[in-house]
Amino acid sequence: MLPFANDYMQTMHPALLKRLASMEGDAFSGYGSDACTESAKARICAAFSCPEADVVFLCGGTQANLVVISAMLHATEGVVAATTGHVAVHEAGAIEATGHKVLTLPSHEGKVCAEELAALLRAFDADETREHTVYPGMLYISHPTEYGTLYTKAELQALSDVCHAHGMLLYLDGARLGYGLAAHATDVHAADIAALCDAFTIGGTKVGAICGEAVVFPGGAPKHFFSYVKQRGALMAKGFFVGAQFDTLFTDGLYEAIGRHAIDMAERLCAVLAQNGYERFMESPTNQQFVILELRQYEFLSEQVHMSVWEPLADGRIVVRFCTSWATTEEQIDALAYLLAEAKRR
Amino acid sequence: MLPFANDYMQTMHPALLKRLASMEGDAFSGYGSDACTESAKARICAAFSCPEADVVFLCGGTQANLVVISAMLHATEGVVAATTGHVAVHEAGAIEATGHKVLTLPSHEGKVCAEELAALLRAFDADETREHTVYPGMLYISHPTEYGTLYTKAELQALSDVCHAHGMLLYLDGARLGYGLAAHATDVHAADIAALCDAFTIGGTKVGAICGEAVVFPGGAPKHFFSYVKQRGALMAKGFFVGAQFDTLFTDGLYEAIGRHAIDMAERLCAVLAQNGYERFMESPTNQQFVILELRQYEFLSEQVHMSVWEPLADGRIVVRFCTSWATTEEQIDALAYLLAEAKRR
Amino acid sequence: MLPFANDYMQTMHPALLKRLASMEGDAFSGYGSDACTESAKARICAAFSCPEADVVFLCGGTQANLVVISAMLHATEGVVAATTGHVAVHEAGAIEATGHKVLTLPSHEGKVCAEELAALLRAFDADETREHTVYPGMLYISHPTEYGTLYTKAELQALSDVCHAHGMLLYLDGARLGYGLAAHATDVHAADIAALCDAFTIGGTKVGAICGEAVVFPGGAPKHFFSYVKQRGALMAKGFFVGAQFDTLFTDGLYEAIGRHAIDMAERLCAVLAQNGYERFMESPTNQQFVILELRQYEFLSEQVHMSVWEPLADGRIVVRFCTSWATTEEQIDALAYLLAEAKRR
Amino acid sequence: MLPFANDYMQTMHPALLKRLASMEGDAFSGYGSDACTESAKARICAAFSCPEADVVFLCGGTQANLVVISAMLHATEGVVAATTGHVAVHEAGAIEATGHKVLTLPSHEGKVCAEELAALLRAFDADETREHTVYPGMLYISHPTEYGTLYTKAELQALSDVCHAHGMLLYLDGARLGYGLAAHATDVHAADIAALCDAFTIGGTKVGAICGEAVVFPGGAPKHFFSYVKQRGALMAKGFFVGAQFDTLFTDGLYEAIGRHAIDMAERLCAVLAQNGYERFMESPTNQQFVILELRQYEFLSEQVHMSVWEPLADGRIVVRFCTSWATTEEQIDALAYLLAEAKRR
Repeated sequence: MLPFANDYMQTMHPALLKRLASMEGDAFSGYGSDACTESAKARICAAFSCPEADVVFLCGGTQANLVVISAMLHATEGVVAATTGHVAVHEAGAIEATGHKVLTLPSHEGKVCAEELAALLRAFDADETREHTVYPGMLYISHPTEYGTLYTKAELQALSDVCHAHGMLLYLDGARLGYGLAAHATDVHAADIAALCDAFTIGGTKVGAICGEAVVFPGGAPKHFFSYVKQRGALMAKGFFVGAQFDTLFTDGLYEAIGRHAIDMAERLCAVLAQNGYERFMESPTNQQFVILELRQYEFLSEQVHMSVWEPLADGRIVVRFCTSWATTEEQIDALAYLLAEAKRR
Repeated sequence: MLPFANDYMQTMHPALLKRLASMEGDAFSGYGSDACTESAKARICAAFSCPEADVVFLCGGTQANLVVISAMLHATEGVVAATTGHVAVHEAGAIEATGHKVLTLPSHEGKVCAEELAALLRAFDADETREHTVYPGMLYISHPTEYGTLYTKAELQALSDVCHAHGMLLYLDGARLGYGLAAHATDVHAADIAALCDAFTIGGTKVGAICGEAVVFPGGAPKHFFSYVKQRGALMAKGFFVGAQFDTLFTDGLYEAIGRHAIDMAERLCAVLAQNGYERFMESPTNQQFVILELRQYEFLSEQVHMSVWEPLADGRIVVRFCTSWATTEEQIDALAYLLAEAKRR
Repeated sequence: MLPFANDYMQTMHPALLKRLASMEGDAFSGYGSDACTESAKARICAAFSCPEADVVFLCGGTQANLVVISAMLHATEGVVAATTGHVAVHEAGAIEATGHKVLTLPSHEGKVCAEELAALLRAFDADETREHTVYPGMLYISHPTEYGTLYTKAELQALSDVCHAHGMLLYLDGARLGYGLAAHATDVHAADIAALCDAFTIGGTKVGAICGEAVVFPGGAPKHFFSYVKQRGALMAKGFFVGAQFDTLFTDGLYEAIGRHAIDMAERLCAVLAQNGYERFMESPTNQQFVILELRQYEFLSEQVHMSVWEPLADGRIVVRFCTSWATTEEQIDALAYLLAEAKRR
Repeated sequence: MLPFANDYMQTMHPALLKRLASMEGDAFSGYGSDACTESAKARICAAFSCPEADVVFLCGGTQANLVVISAMLHATEGVVAATTGHVAVHEAGAIEATGHKVLTLPSHEGKVCAEELAALLRAFDADETREHTVYPGMLYISHPTEYGTLYTKAELQALSDVCHAHGMLLYLDGARLGYGLAAHATDVHAADIAALCDAFTIGGTKVGAICGEAVVFPGGAPKHFFSYVKQRGALMAKGFFVGAQFDTLFTDGLYEAIGRHAIDMAERLCAVLAQNGYERFMESPTNQQFVILELRQYEFLSEQVHMSVWEPLADGRIVVRFCTSWATTEEQIDALAYLLAEAKRR
């Protein structure tokens, strides 16, 4: 089966496995107090041009979201997200389980719009009963979004401005950030993210690591954050293991290279889709590609390709997602190209 | 520096690293729905003689404790633990953060006593204001305890009987279970644990894995447990990674072998301590050894040995902990023996 | 100033004050274990034809909602409500603070529609990622709604059927139930509510009491509910005080009489509004009346009438709410009628 | 039956009932925004010499404790209390349900000792694993305590000093504060409490009101406190009702007079107990008196007196509590005196 279902189907990038093997026999101090972790933090601060940042390594994406959001919000505040945002729909109520409401804005191909946020805040301010409602305390965005789309630098700037003018925090979920930064069309650089956000994550799990997300607080971590991470069950005894992975990812441009590779593979796939006349559900400049298939095409492909069923359409067709990743090979793209051409003839 | 500070200073057992390397290039389905995980579950059910059990793999110990305890308790119930229990003191309030009180019993070298539990329950039943108090809903024990001590089978049976006669659940934290099962003095076998407990964990992180704890529910997992794990940020996208480690640990008796090795190393260490006349803070049949050092001995040793400072005594001496593990070598024990003999001469 | 801003501007119905005065010098046992409370429970069970019900008296409406909802839901479940539902917007995140998400359905003049609920449940069942989402565990409805509207018996029956076919609970917030049951147009009787809902409240605060809401569980209260109420800070030491109020309210048809009186006053008000050609924002058969005013009319009236500003319209006009209650007098209606006629001439 | 079981068996002081009756027909704005509440706040600020304080009226004592404690603590902080403290044992886990641990100190007749607190804090500071434990963020004391005992001014000063030197907050639960301030032996005045504590409550429910506790923050309330109160279900729609009670209690020295009356009645009772040679379980200068009875004495008395069984002693005798209150009459004391003398002859 060709592995295009998602970007977390394989273990880890060979360089990370090599690093892990090289650590055999060495002893490290626990809970992230080791030299690998220190080095990784320094490399991330350099890569994102935020020398004063606090960097903390956690295990997974939902974990990072719930820990960061609940650590930064006041009890009476909620987090604003797109209706399609991961925290709004696909975290089994993780944010609410920490006591905070997820307020929603319309999703524009996965993105929120600064003007709609500003309108929400104006309505909040004008509401005489606002003390009986949830305060918008933070904006959550994903970049790339759940649909693989990207904010422009101007859009990020506008969101950051609206948030900060209202005393709100801006948090960017970068579970697939490596693929976002490597997109050809983007004008958003690593340093922009650190400059515009109050917190953001750098995804490892989907970008070459076997597990691990870096959480970055450009202006410093919340009070007692180490203990808070422990309290939420998110502190890893062998933190050096995640630290070492990120240390490797941010050495010699590996994180960027992984991103570019997946983007290259995605662009080849896009070309194949176009050549064969497949209709796109949404355009995406990153590693997730959403395609509309006829049922018979889907059935033919699903025998040989792992892909994700996104949603059925009312007309009987099916939206599927093909993901590339650091692990995608040219041979896999070629094989998929052949099958896509075949499927078109069914 | 000789690595005796704890049992989570090194990456992973070579067999697990080999298994991980062998997975390169393969694709796995996510969130623990893969074949490695299925195989690991079956091996654990066999090893613990609990064919109907539900087995779930999580990342770390505090995470496992908070997820299991909060998933099994009613809102008005608390968990009873020794005053020295990990959930009572060293989890930064993780249990309370899920809304549940930790009620305490006296610690007898880390253990709780069935008669004292029974007395607590009698007092609860006799209390006319009990509806204004927290219901004791579960007993938490660790085996080995935080002091490396072990329950006898009769003690476990008595605790289980008291719990179940009162409608309480029994949960065993087995973060170091491998070292407990391998102790020479113990009469507690794997099957006993599954037979007596409503839930227990099998530690991986401290017993050869790089991360991962198996949670076992001999009578079946709580309702919606998969979603609950997700909600608590404890669901790993690449669950196959933890599954594969446990699959290897429970193949060809590796988990047992790792346990025996650490016990053998601990016994060698005990012999050295006895030969040199060191006073013990507490006797332990497992891989954690607590020793009382003079300050000058401590200062001498700490230049070449990583050990844990447990607590200072009023007379100026210091209690330290030496841990062996799957990774401890005979050479390390010999080197430590030499230094301990030297220290005694200071 | 004429008191039409809401239905909780005055102390308590004279009969309740008289009852309270009559209790002077008597001693009662605490926490709702007194004879007044027992009598009140029996009267409510009789009035709602639910002899097996558990009835519990709490202090306020948001308190009742959060206690009932969190006590009845599993950790992974959320409560479904109209986007305009009190729990969705006006409780400062009280439900989320207990760990549960509020899922929303469109509001049709404050009501939800059984078919839209069924569609939501079908989509949930069809979602392959549903274990990563929040389970719809309960439907929250208010009757009357926040807009004073009422469900028909057929609508309630349909909602109850959809809920129960899917294993969901139905909870009715009756903060203004007395005004709903007394409406002329309604075909919903007290017994219908007990027959169709798993839990409901009978509002006291807005219907003659100085504080207090009765929570009714026709099929019995959740486990350890007394302790849960205590844990949430909702147990009143002098529970007899709320019990006595409800005992009086449900003696000799007072609750019904109060409801009818407010409805009669509201109908007089409606007639005045119609005579003077005021535009209605929404038709309501109960004690809340929503009217669209020109700015100059609003300014004139607000000098002599307490009313609630509901929302500004884009055209500069203003939606206001006039509430009648048990305390509204004919003289007040006449005075308001005069002012409304005057305002129309401005 | 003579009502000595507790101090919340009767409705409300006649002056408060009269005030309530006088409010009939008047309209008030909701949620504590009324003039009665404003007046009550000003009177309390004056009575406690804290002109800058924020005063908030809540309904009950457990509610006040959980709202204040959780609003003032950081997520990683716990509250320190005596093992006998109300928050530690008799609130059904209310504090833990908000996510915070209750850390305990030994109880000395209900009181904690500054030196023991200081020792706890020194141990915390010296603990190298303290980031894995719960931070002591606040000290909770009750005054009078659950045993009717009182802190001296020097003791309060010492506790306040230890707390503030360590960055901890001091919170005083004054559910029976009126009886504490009126005790003959005390050197603690109202202004001392405001000067030494970061938050305290002034009990109404047990001191003449039918419900209601005033929460005072001498240095200002926590951020968004109004919304937080709402979120916890503790905001009363008819806040004017509690405000008016406190306004009356703090007019013309009524709160002090109520306190003195109960103390006078308690002292008469003490004299009777001494004359008849009853053994005291604990000396108390306030309205709760703990007496050791023979079983036959208890059985005789319990036919005609409501008293609280506190605890059985190992020798078969029983500790009971007699409470006086604002409502206790001289005739009741005389009747109890007669019965106590009779009981002694059994």
